[in-house]
Amino acid sequence: MSKPFVAVLMGSDSDLPTMQATLDVLKTFNIHFEAKVTSAHRTPAATHAYVTDAEARGCKVFICAAGLAAHLAGAVAGITTRPVIGVPVDCGPLQGHDALLSTVMMPGGVPVATVAIGSAGAKNAGYLAAQMLAVADDELALKVKEERALSAEAVQAKDAKLQEKLANA
Amino acid sequence: MSKPFVAVLMGSDSDLPTMQATLDVLKTFNIHFEAKVTSAHRTPAATHAYVTDAEARGCKVFICAAGLAAHLAGAVAGITTRPVIGVPVDCGPLQGHDALLSTVMMPGGVPVATVAIGSAGAKNAGYLAAQMLAVADDELALKVKEERALSAEAVQAKDAKLQEKLANA
Amino acid sequence: MSKPFVAVLMGSDSDLPTMQATLDVLKTFNIHFEAKVTSAHRTPAATHAYVTDAEARGCKVFICAAGLAAHLAGAVAGITTRPVIGVPVDCGPLQGHDALLSTVMMPGGVPVATVAIGSAGAKNAGYLAAQMLAVADDELALKVKEERALSAEAVQAKDAKLQEKLANA
Amino acid sequence: MSKPFVAVLMGSDSDLPTMQATLDVLKTFNIHFEAKVTSAHRTPAATHAYVTDAEARGCKVFICAAGLAAHLAGAVAGITTRPVIGVPVDCGPLQGHDALLSTVMMPGGVPVATVAIGSAGAKNAGYLAAQMLAVADDELALKVKEERALSAEAVQAKDAKLQEKLANA
Amino acid sequence: MSKPFVAVLMGSDSDLPTMQATLDVLKTFNIHFEAKVTSAHRTPAATHAYVTDAEARGCKVFICAAGLAAHLAGAVAGITTRPVIGVPVDCGPLQGHDALLSTVMMPGGVPVATVAIGSAGAKNAGYLAAQMLAVADDELALKVKEERALSAEAVQAKDAKLQEKLANA
Amino acid sequence: MSKPFVAVLMGSDSDLPTMQATLDVLKTFNIHFEAKVTSAHRTPAATHAYVTDAEARGCKVFICAAGLAAHLAGAVAGITTRPVIGVPVDCGPLQGHDALLSTVMMPGGVPVATVAIGSAGAKNAGYLAAQMLAVADDELALKVKEERALSAEAVQAKDAKLQEKLANA
Amino acid sequence: MSKPFVAVLMGSDSDLPTMQATLDVLKTFNIHFEAKVTSAHRTPAATHAYVTDAEARGCKVFICAAGLAAHLAGAVAGITTRPVIGVPVDCGPLQGHDALLSTVMMPGGVPVATVAIGSAGAKNAGYLAAQMLAVADDELALKVKEERALSAEAVQAKDAKLQEKLANA
Amino acid sequence: MSKPFVAVLMGSDSDLPTMQATLDVLKTFNIHFEAKVTSAHRTPAATHAYVTDAEARGCKVFICAAGLAAHLAGAVAGITTRPVIGVPVDCGPLQGHDALLSTVMMPGGVPVATVAIGSAGAKNAGYLAAQMLAVADDELALKVKEERALSAEAVQAKDAKLQEKLANA
Repeated sequence: MSKPFVAVLMGSDSDLPTMQATLDVLKTFNIHFEAKVTSAHRTPAATHAYVTDAEARGCKVFICAAGLAAHLAGAVAGITTRPVIGVPVDCGPLQGHDALLSTVMMPGGVPVATVAIGSAGAKNAGYLAAQMLAVADDELALKVKEERALSAEAVQAKDAKLQEKLANA
Repeated sequence: MSKPFVAVLMGSDSDLPTMQATLDVLKTFNIHFEAKVTSAHRTPAATHAYVTDAEARGCKVFICAAGLAAHLAGAVAGITTRPVIGVPVDCGPLQGHDALLSTVMMPGGVPVATVAIGSAGAKNAGYLAAQMLAVADDELALKVKEERALSAEAVQAKDAKLQEKLANA
Repeated sequence: MSKPFVAVLMGSDSDLPTMQATLDVLKTFNIHFEAKVTSAHRTPAATHAYVTDAEARGCKVFICAAGLAAHLAGAVAGITTRPVIGVPVDCGPLQGHDALLSTVMMPGGVPVATVAIGSAGAKNAGYLAAQMLAVADDELALKVKEERALSAEAVQAKDAKLQEKLANA
Repeated sequence: MSKPFVAVLMGSDSDLPTMQATLDVLKTFNIHFEAKVTSAHRTPAATHAYVTDAEARGCKVFICAAGLAAHLAGAVAGITTRPVIGVPVDCGPLQGHDALLSTVMMPGGVPVATVAIGSAGAKNAGYLAAQMLAVADDELALKVKEERALSAEAVQAKDAKLQEKLANA
Repeated sequence: MSKPFVAVLMGSDSDLPTMQATLDVLKTFNIHFEAKVTSAHRTPAATHAYVTDAEARGCKVFICAAGLAAHLAGAVAGITTRPVIGVPVDCGPLQGHDALLSTVMMPGGVPVATVAIGSAGAKNAGYLAAQMLAVADDELALKVKEERALSAEAVQAKDAKLQEKLANA
Repeated sequence: MSKPFVAVLMGSDSDLPTMQATLDVLKTFNIHFEAKVTSAHRTPAATHAYVTDAEARGCKVFICAAGLAAHLAGAVAGITTRPVIGVPVDCGPLQGHDALLSTVMMPGGVPVATVAIGSAGAKNAGYLAAQMLAVADDELALKVKEERALSAEAVQAKDAKLQEKLANA
Repeated sequence: MSKPFVAVLMGSDSDLPTMQATLDVLKTFNIHFEAKVTSAHRTPAATHAYVTDAEARGCKVFICAAGLAAHLAGAVAGITTRPVIGVPVDCGPLQGHDALLSTVMMPGGVPVATVAIGSAGAKNAGYLAAQMLAVADDELALKVKEERALSAEAVQAKDAKLQEKLANA
Repeated sequence: MSKPFVAVLMGSDSDLPTMQATLDVLKTFNIHFEAKVTSAHRTPAATHAYVTDAEARGCKVFICAAGLAAHLAGAVAGITTRPVIGVPVDCGPLQGHDALLSTVMMPGGVPVATVAIGSAGAKNAGYLAAQMLAVADDELALKVKEERALSAEAVQAKDAKLQEKLANA
């Protein structure tokens, strides 16, 4: 049987700089993933074929990034019943406000787990996928907790620097 | 060969009261049409099958109405290369602002001809379809011009009533 | 050991009419759940105690609903590393637009899986929790697929009614 | 009799860099076009004269680009009954949000087929005009299909590059 | 020679309930006015003819009310060089936010003096027209000052009632 | 007796680069003006004193520019009964959207004639002031008409350049 | 010497139903207050006189409520250096979004302590005033803590009801 | 007993450049302060511990700055009953509009005294804290009045420069 993995789909290769953060977080957790450029509008058949095949091969979570009238996450959510995480990309004149509404306002029955617009959301898509997989993977759950603790330490290190700076001012 | 027609698709039967205005305008122009409830998210395969078949049977223009993260028009525009008119429906807490952005902000290569949110847009979807068909149908083009003249007369009749009212005030 | 369950938290009992849809979906899938009124601002200590305890007792997914400056989902996401689903409630003069941004725009490291504002989102919070649990529960995964099929049939039944109506018009 | 063509109108010559994409798409399809700087507010009489004359000379579709309180498309739609495509330009402090609403929210009876704000919309105005002309031009319809296929191949080429990059990472 | 007057134009007779407030204010100041239903889109030629004629007959200020993609004030401002006051009407799903942007964001050279959306704006359109005419009419200027004083007294009367209410509480 | 003039008030000297366009237009029309930096919030007494004095000395129109919670125009409109033109300045993180609403949404009885956000509005404030003064000054009215004709010629010159460019392409 | 008190100012008597919640909270804490209808625009002189006098008589905190282009809080903040709390009222077609921006986006040097739009904000204006006075009043500080505890108990009582309801379902 | 002070909390060290303005204003008034980087989401326990301890040690006012789904001010307001001032930081694709709504729209009972987005708000947070402390500190109240007078003089100096510039033009 095939190995569990996360699929990271992007509507355009211009979304890759934003989505690199997602790939980095998945690597941090040693989560297997595939990344793919595919479009809800320009290659709907290829998107459909990939999602169906990926689910059959063991994909457990889909992460979809798109800007403007961002339909990719919703389209994927209509094909699979695995959880779909949507990242609204902050491109175009409306800075991702359009992508946020196009991703999050899904009708009843076909949810998209939407995260923040842009880079913060890209990072969180990776963490959220890890949390979903950790529901039934105690080892991963532990890693997620450790990562959270590291993040808290990072905040405290920044505070320590601020205290030093204020003391020397 | 099959007869040319317009296909009017709705994401939900709750869009019918809004879209009745579209059907009424098409009837005014004696334009053949089919209407169908089909969902980009809940019945993507049925939507794909219908659109492909309809285009083969002679559908010349698609009109798609949806609310919230309104993907129906964009999804149909990704299947066919016939013109697709999108009507953002004013349902939900954001009153169609979400549906407008989800419909109009399409990426390059896959246009959706978007009209106004709600009832004004529903009416105009019918007129716009008539205008598109009239590009190569002089008889229809004449009817569109006549209808425009009637609409101007209606404005002038309203003004006449206002003048009468002001004269009697 | 305690049984796995979903915790459904509401910032106010006025959110219950909206969140009943979540509870109904969870019942449909025979998913165990607890529901609780608790506030990020008025009862932060009780919220903290409940979330910590619930995670220890086997809570796998948290669903949090709040309106206005909706902090509940984010606050819970800062306490637990289980997935947190946020439902922005459409109360107050901004109709949930404030709750949406307060829920979805989380900084890197602490994701909230945000669904649509209001009733569509409440329903989808239940479906999304089921999808998350189904990642490692094949029986539940099957039920989710069956429910999706039923939803497609419902759309097609609505279309059948429309066709009948049009035929008789 | 005069040859069918598309008229591309701009409210200002500062819209030309955006609208060059429209002209390029029309050239790709070998569609005859005229381009003109004309203003709904500063040269209303010249606009009226041009539109009336262009329709008489065989203009089948009008494309109108404007920013801010973008009235050009609506004004042209009030003069002709040919289809009018509106491109909201992303200039000024509101980044085209004002131009979008001024273009798309037309009252019943006078539709404007609105596309996305800015460069994506400029490109799509060209594609949409081609689709409209292709309703009655099978050769052009074929070209539109071929162009769509090329656009799909471009997405797949980008994906191939991503796969290569990931394989070498 | 004809008498100076104010012209009050409405895009639709459905704007009359809002614009009655304008007419009432003009009557308060004994300012002569004409009111007319005319549409920038449905009757552009009639609008042009009326505005040109009205200016020739002595119209000193135009007041234009419209909703949605509200072009009437801008269209009139493109025909006349008399001051044009625009009232954005709060109809449709966006509650006049579209009408506000369509009215106020005019390009350089063709100003529209925009007032508030809806009833407050309708009232103020009348006051603003009176202020404009009063620039060169000392008697009217005095009336405007008296009206302002009455409005201050009305606020103070409301305060007196509040004090009474609080004293009796 | 003192000479008629226009007063141009700015909430901050950082508004001067925007408002230079207003001063330039007033110079074009040989309209006398005074310009002043004064703040509704930081120097309310000085603002009150200046406005009262300016009105007494023959100020016929006030133009007020401010950003953020832009109160200057409204404050001045509460002191004088001369027409007040408000220019919302596009500074700060909301790009003048806050200034627009703070300027235009005045309550009944105290109008502000609001123009577009930023540079287009600054220019139009000058034109609008000229139009107001021209209500009773036929010579100025003629200049306003000539300036409008020049602006139309400028559009046509831009079009001529475009035609040349297209002919040589 | 006069007694310390809070002044509650409203731009219109139509704000009283909203602001009753403020008065009720102040009564709960036995805080002396005065309430007054006064307008930044219609009665600027009376507003100035009242604020100056109130500060001299011992007013320690001002609470100002207004809708639309809500200037009252900012105007009062420009007169006094006591803390000014602003309540944006949710009236008019923009539902208080205009009042929020007009109240909160104050320029540097003249702060307004802004609370939520509408009823939640009205309540919180009272609590915030109490917190400000409690900075130097230990008895009041204790009452504020007790009131917070009661509010927490109210949430827990609502939760108890929910548990009962769920147990009986 | 410990000395009264103001605590300035930031969700991230990237907020320090914005918040330096707050620290500078507090220094101007010789107000003791502590500054700390602490996160509502990443270090909720440390935040809780610090706030509780700071209140016990004599912190009279909390100032909290955060961007995106800015929860820090609300979280702190739920822990302490001292006044909490919230500064929405203008980071991320929505430029602080999300932070503003997340900070200001607090539910009844837990107020946050919100100031403007970004640098103007950071400055005003310092002034507002000074005003709050000055409620019971006449010496500080005097300094606040003097600072306001200096700010008025600065405006008048800018006006003097403008007059000089205009005189030399």
